[in-house]
Amino acid sequence: MVICAERVTKKAKNILFIMFDQLRWDYLSCYGHPHLHTPNIDRLATMGVRFDRAHIQSPICGSSRMSTYTGRYVHSHGASWNGIPLKVGEVTMGDHLRQAGMGCWLVGKTHMRADADGMARLGLEPDSLIGARVAECGFDVFERDDGMLPEGPDGSYDPDGAREYNNYLRAKGYESDNPWHDFANSGLDADGNVLSGWFLKNSPEPANIAEEDSETPYLTTRAMEFIAGQDGPWCCHLSYIKPHWPYIVPEPYASMFGPEHVLPVVRSDAERQEAHPIFKAFMDTKVGETFSRQDVREAVIPAYMGLIKQADDQMGRLFRWLEDTGRMDETMIVLTSDHGDFLGDHWMGEKTFFHDSSIKVPLIIYDPSTEADATRGTVSDALVESIDLAPTFVEVAGGTPAYHMLEGESLLPILHGQATETRRGHVICEYDFSATPVAHLHDIGVRDAVMFMVADKRWKLIHFEGGHRPMLFDRESDPQELVDLGGSAEHETVIAEMYDKLFAWTRRQSQRTTRSEEQLIEMRTKTRRRGVVIGVYDENDTPLELTTRYRGRRAPDMKNGPRA
Amino acid sequence: MVICAERVTKKAKNILFIMFDQLRWDYLSCYGHPHLHTPNIDRLATMGVRFDRAHIQSPICGSSRMSTYTGRYVHSHGASWNGIPLKVGEVTMGDHLRQAGMGCWLVGKTHMRADADGMARLGLEPDSLIGARVAECGFDVFERDDGMLPEGPDGSYDPDGAREYNNYLRAKGYESDNPWHDFANSGLDADGNVLSGWFLKNSPEPANIAEEDSETPYLTTRAMEFIAGQDGPWCCHLSYIKPHWPYIVPEPYASMFGPEHVLPVVRSDAERQEAHPIFKAFMDTKVGETFSRQDVREAVIPAYMGLIKQADDQMGRLFRWLEDTGRMDETMIVLTSDHGDFLGDHWMGEKTFFHDSSIKVPLIIYDPSTEADATRGTVSDALVESIDLAPTFVEVAGGTPAYHMLEGESLLPILHGQATETRRGHVICEYDFSATPVAHLHDIGVRDAVMFMVADKRWKLIHFEGGHRPMLFDRESDPQELVDLGGSAEHETVIAEMYDKLFAWTRRQSQRTTRSEEQLIEMRTKTRRRGVVIGVYDENDTPLELTTRYRGRRAPDMKNGPRA
Repeated sequence: MVICAERVTKKAKNILFIMFDQLRWDYLSCYGHPHLHTPNIDRLATMGVRFDRAHIQSPICGSSRMSTYTGRYVHSHGASWNGIPLKVGEVTMGDHLRQAGMGCWLVGKTHMRADADGMARLGLEPDSLIGARVAECGFDVFERDDGMLPEGPDGSYDPDGAREYNNYLRAKGYESDNPWHDFANSGLDADGNVLSGWFLKNSPEPANIAEEDSETPYLTTRAMEFIAGQDGPWCCHLSYIKPHWPYIVPEPYASMFGPEHVLPVVRSDAERQEAHPIFKAFMDTKVGETFSRQDVREAVIPAYMGLIKQADDQMGRLFRWLEDTGRMDETMIVLTSDHGDFLGDHWMGEKTFFHDSSIKVPLIIYDPSTEADATRGTVSDALVESIDLAPTFVEVAGGTPAYHMLEGESLLPILHGQATETRRGHVICEYDFSATPVAHLHDIGVRDAVMFMVADKRWKLIHFEGGHRPMLFDRESDPQELVDLGGSAEHETVIAEMYDKLFAWTRRQSQRTTRSEEQLIEMRTKTRRRGVVIGVYDENDTPLELTTRYRGRRAPDMKNGPRA
Repeated sequence: MVICAERVTKKAKNILFIMFDQLRWDYLSCYGHPHLHTPNIDRLATMGVRFDRAHIQSPICGSSRMSTYTGRYVHSHGASWNGIPLKVGEVTMGDHLRQAGMGCWLVGKTHMRADADGMARLGLEPDSLIGARVAECGFDVFERDDGMLPEGPDGSYDPDGAREYNNYLRAKGYESDNPWHDFANSGLDADGNVLSGWFLKNSPEPANIAEEDSETPYLTTRAMEFIAGQDGPWCCHLSYIKPHWPYIVPEPYASMFGPEHVLPVVRSDAERQEAHPIFKAFMDTKVGETFSRQDVREAVIPAYMGLIKQADDQMGRLFRWLEDTGRMDETMIVLTSDHGDFLGDHWMGEKTFFHDSSIKVPLIIYDPSTEADATRGTVSDALVESIDLAPTFVEVAGGTPAYHMLEGESLLPILHGQATETRRGHVICEYDFSATPVAHLHDIGVRDAVMFMVADKRWKLIHFEGGHRPMLFDRESDPQELVDLGGSAEHETVIAEMYDKLFAWTRRQSQRTTRSEEQLIEMRTKTRRRGVVIGVYDENDTPLELTTRYRGRRAPDMKNGPRA
């Protein structure tokens, strides 16, 4: 009797696509944070590949996500700011995956704004299957939770925000017309007054909610409920709201970090004094000025860290559950963020500019496939963009990425040790601030309130519409990006070279999406064989078979018409 | 008794949008042709404005038309060659006009290829009202006639081509399986053999058809039938097939012109010997070589002129009918072409390059409105693009052009004597030859087989993807475009300036089509009033009314959860 020792070949069958919101790339211990220990995420990195140069396509939630979900640059899909709808007709990750036989589901946030006008124009009903997918950026919705229910004098920015979550909280006894605000995102003083998390001074307060009922555990539970009910190949976009503001976290995370854990601010006086006028306009915003205060940083950053620590614990819970239920061996896990957070660095708050604090994100991909064994625990310094995820997922689903629509490139060659770099050699990021208060304050027209970033491993160039000089950073000698070389005569050549890259990118055929490369090549020789023969003087000018239908035909004389 | 002399104010109510196919800008007597007298078109010019610098967006039928019909550059809509479908979701002239209360109908050719995949993805049925419009580039179809039924060994390039017209011919007694070919587009020898118009040697033959049954009179009749049945405001796109090849015309037009009327060819030996490699690749095509022969020019050009003469006579018939039926005073008439024809100039046939022979078109606009009285009979040398027509038509229809979608600009200010120039200062033309035999022959990749032209009144720059030097023409000192200055060191500054214009154009936000400029500006101040307050440390950091909902709230202590 011969016993065959057969090697078990593993293969990713499903995809768990985890996105955090506003998680800075360097606020995880595997990315080097000295105080914020994230052992569960770090462990995922040891099981897969940790990307050290992962860039998003726009430093704002909605536009970054629309790029991730379509696999296309902002300049290509046009949803260039929060609240600018993704136009009907754009093809999404969900469309591509379903075509490859994989479901694509949402648990959490997308920041999608439906193109209601476009849908009406095409007669797409929001409650039809197709209409619902178009309205939800291609996802089938298990639960949509964009993570906030803000309320102001003119109503709510997102009246449907946190709807299911609010129902959950109310059902659990959190009595309020907006428990998302009053419990999950606020503290409480000794007199029973709600200390709103919208006010940064309240960030050090513990959120007035049982930890297991707060947003991150809630969405983790919802993802497990979704996954438990699935059979066939699925992609689950588990899209967390946190550590995005309001910056407030329940105990025990509220007390875990204090001012002593706040890293020194990264900025210089020269940077502020000599700032490029558009950069200065952003520094001068309320949020820039507020986060430039050390008391604010000391109030906010410990809460931000607590939110991340909580996220890491939830990752531990989720990964253990996947292991316990036998799913770890058949599920690719992708963990990333939609953008970072300045947190006071560079005299800035929020994310709406192009420093690494904002436009680099953590990206860890664990691929259970045997082919990925060679790269487990490695770090890739390839120049990666968030648009690379969609084609990667299509390949995992067994499909062929439609590169005439998808502008990223599959990361599987890197994950499988067949490549160490992406092919493009640079990354692009864009920011359209035409709909922002900054443009209002400085009276900048909607065509001029636009910026582009192009970066390779050495240089980062920022171009501004409206006639300004560019900004330039040397990413090697100045990794903290404190010295803007955009006006330096010595760097004219570098600036010109980076502009050449940007120009080549802007010329790409991003809208030629209805014919694939293969189809275009096939068309090259097809037309003549379908009867169109041009520049042919007589029958000997072209292979005879092409004109069979034009020769040897007979007809009556009809020059004077049928009555002749 | 006082008699009030009341001035009658006229206003354009309808639009007759006439397009010829492959009609060179300078083959009309009002544009200076010395032998080809076109009194009816010339008369329209005396009644309106003749544009002397009208440019199309791409020197190929389909792409040029998709730009005209969407009001958007090829780079924006992506239908960059014949047979590359216009992607579902693109908004058309018809959509804009219907929104303004004007119908938009087709009588003739569009070269539209429907995005069948995109329609299926969105569940749009081609036989539904919306689906049919999407499939027909936004037009309601009175008659679609793309003007040919070619036949080759692999079937037909357009199996539906000339369908209604073939039915008409058969009903009139033209017996054949393809009367379009055998009668309308072929001659006949004395022995009853069909002399196919596909062979240029047969161009001098009279087409074997009664003149009134040939394509141009047929479509004119169809347009009159359409117009006669209309009440409300309508735009009728009367889109002729001719003088596009097959170059053949019935009597009396077949005998009107001879080799003595063929203008001297415009070319130089140096032009051919020192040709830019991509330009040379086009010269070296079969059609380039064929049209470089004087015998071919002498065979083809008289037929081409005959087709135009016939077109002019049909214009006379049509305009008289409009006058006789009282419609002339309420109908804007626009007459143009989709591109020109090299006809052997520059060692080229066909149109697929950027010389004026190809990318300039006649454009005459007669506006019956009283406001246009000031400009009747004038010539405008404004830099006009074919994408300017859609916004012009929207204004005529009483609407406001949606300039976040439409990339042209209304010509009404010029027509009404309020402006003499368009605002942009340059024109753009594009050619994607990735699906052509030239790319096949020279093994050029689909991303490299793309060219862009940017021109102002003085300079014309042509950029080629794939690493080639540009071409440059001085339109003032070298109006025949015989001297390519693209490699001239003396012109480096000019080349750089033209490249700057092209670069600025490529960076435009062409896909930000779901929010208007007004909406973007409104958004600038809206978000904070809907509850999103960021960078606010305490309640004194922001107007109190913005945080009313976040202050003065009370809650029970829930930190330990509902059971506490």
